[in-house]
Amino acid sequence: MLLPWTDIEVPERVEAAYYDGLGSPPGDLADVEFYVLPYDRGPEPPKLIKELPSLRVVQSLSAGVEALVPLLPAGVRLANGRGLHDLSVAEHALALIHAAQRDLPRWFAQQARGSWVREHTRSLADSRVLLVGYGSIGQAIERQLVAAEAVVTRVASRPRPDEGIHGVGELAALLPQADIVVLVLPDTPATRGLIGAEQLAALPDDALLVNVGRGTAVDTGALLAETRTGRLRAGLDVVDPEPLPADHPLWTVPGVVITPHIAGGSASFYPRAKKLAAEQVRRYVRGEELLNVVAP
Amino acid sequence: MLLPWTDIEVPERVEAAYYDGLGSPPGDLADVEFYVLPYDRGPEPPKLIKELPSLRVVQSLSAGVEALVPLLPAGVRLANGRGLHDLSVAEHALALIHAAQRDLPRWFAQQARGSWVREHTRSLADSRVLLVGYGSIGQAIERQLVAAEAVVTRVASRPRPDEGIHGVGELAALLPQADIVVLVLPDTPATRGLIGAEQLAALPDDALLVNVGRGTAVDTGALLAETRTGRLRAGLDVVDPEPLPADHPLWTVPGVVITPHIAGGSASFYPRAKKLAAEQVRRYVRGEELLNVVAP
Ligand SMILES: NC(=O)c1ccc[n+]([C@@H]2O[C@H](COP(=O)([O-])OP(=O)(O)OC[C@H]3O[C@@H](n4cnc5c(N)ncnc54)[C@H](OP(=O)(O)O)[C@@H]3O)[C@@H](O)[C@H]2O)c1
Ligand SMILES: NC(=O)c1ccc[n+]([C@@H]2O[C@H](COP(=O)([O-])OP(=O)(O)OC[C@H]3O[C@@H](n4cnc5c(N)ncnc54)[C@H](OP(=O)(O)O)[C@@H]3O)[C@@H](O)[C@H]2O)c1
Repeated sequence: MLLPWTDIEVPERVEAAYYDGLGSPPGDLADVEFYVLPYDRGPEPPKLIKELPSLRVVQSLSAGVEALVPLLPAGVRLANGRGLHDLSVAEHALALIHAAQRDLPRWFAQQARGSWVREHTRSLADSRVLLVGYGSIGQAIERQLVAAEAVVTRVASRPRPDEGIHGVGELAALLPQADIVVLVLPDTPATRGLIGAEQLAALPDDALLVNVGRGTAVDTGALLAETRTGRLRAGLDVVDPEPLPADHPLWTVPGVVITPHIAGGSASFYPRAKKLAAEQVRRYVRGEELLNVVAP
Repeated sequence: MLLPWTDIEVPERVEAAYYDGLGSPPGDLADVEFYVLPYDRGPEPPKLIKELPSLRVVQSLSAGVEALVPLLPAGVRLANGRGLHDLSVAEHALALIHAAQRDLPRWFAQQARGSWVREHTRSLADSRVLLVGYGSIGQAIERQLVAAEAVVTRVASRPRPDEGIHGVGELAALLPQADIVVLVLPDTPATRGLIGAEQLAALPDDALLVNVGRGTAVDTGALLAETRTGRLRAGLDVVDPEPLPADHPLWTVPGVVITPHIAGGSASFYPRAKKLAAEQVRRYVRGEELLNVVAP
């Protein structure tokens, strides 16, 4: 076993080595059959995959593992971290929405100069939210939106009328009724550029676009144009490109809040990730079926 | 009728005059029987109460109306705005919690200088939240906390074990288990100074104190001492005194976010307030019982 944290419970008599993705990996990796990739540590940890001659399983703690598939030697299985981030990403989506609706940047700027000037703000309650992406994370976002008494419309790749889910083909008809659009989509050829100038133009004045999925879903230039004039607002954890260059004009547009792709990795992720890793190791050692296998 | 907004529906043949609390009131007020006070417009609108010789009802749109009671002429009834703010205050409590847990001030500061530096944050999910005040607003806050998968402990003035509600007498025993304390209490002799140096000292390191009720519930000096050292954090919509003086040291303590008492008045308040005003006017005209009568 090669594990990212020392406090993952492993069955007795299983030998574990540790690599957190920051320091150097341990020297002798000849016997490693099961590799739990360090989370969110850049390109180095995946490179180790090809250095492990006994490898049978790669366990990623990310939901999106497209980049790992080509690195897998023949016969090595890949399991992903689906579900581990749901709460973390969902609550960050809410944080971005609240920040925008309740004018938090304004109050923090006033705070810095000791200014007590009051003004009423927008709210999330009663807002019509178009939730584009109704997977594991989208559903967690919906529960929090509903508790805040927002009115949610669900969009996924295919329509499921019996579940109240619209297909993405209906997007053009739905955008004009949205006060807030929340994107929580994977990066695929079909999602790239899904929200371009035409889609943004279809939104009502003052609408808020939130993206916690992948930056590629939005045409950054088109969003810049519509936010610069003050017609639309945005709350973005993901952008295209990432990192956003220091001199990119989007950084300083009033009405745009940006966080540097940190939705997934908050404190609530870690206990869930450790629990999954322990469960997968236990299953592997006993020869049971693994969870979340995505390849081959 | 003296009403704050022209789009409140009034029954046919009812004469309405309008006063939004900003300009001057209309000249002839001799016939006004029903006065809906402009919301959150300072001390002027209540002064008008004694200028209305035909007055029968004062409808406030605030929940806390302690200051109005002494102004009521004999025989004039007072109804309050209980419930109108619940969602607005509740979502602002969530906004303050998210801002603190997800480090929003840090990201906004980075944004201002175009800096893409990533770090994982705390989360709300899994946090143990002690909700002190389990009235109309507290219950709305709870629904949103539960949807975010926080673990809520309820405290009110009296224990109701069958509803899982602790009495305020148990506070000392509950504080050491709280990651986040949310105060949503009225200003009464019993709530003033409820959270002082001793209570703050009972909180674990890094705990977050959120106050959206009344500033008087917290000893500001004691909170300043515990936040200045970085041991505790705070998210405050209400403080003592209000306005917080421009040179008050609390403004600039890292880990403290302050908004200027704006939790109640967001967009979702207005349609609810107008609906209540219309309903009360309708009831008054038909001689039916009024809602929310608090005095005499
Ligand atoms: N910001 C962060 O830190 C962070 C962290 C974790 C994940 N993410 C991103 O969030 C994405 C979503 O995660 P998840 O766990 O919710 O994924 P998921 O459970 O696979 O759900 C994806 C959803 O997107 C929908 N979808 C896919 N292609 C679409 C299209 N062309 N048009 C409309 N809808 C489409 C799917 O529709 P169907 O239901 O019809 O299949 C599904 O509802 C991940 O892929 C990842 O990129 C970001
Ligand atoms: N920040 C803003 O903009 C804003 C806006 C609106 C309101 N507020 C404030 O929020 C307060 C709460 O509003 P609400 O509508 O939720 O009021 P509410 O329905 O009357 O509930 C008040 C709650 O506080 C509890 N309580 C009262 N005294 C207490 C004590 N000494 N110790 C512990 N708990 C005590 C009550 O306990 P029991 O259940 O045992 O009676 C009740 O659960 C208002 O009074 C107002 O001051 C602030």
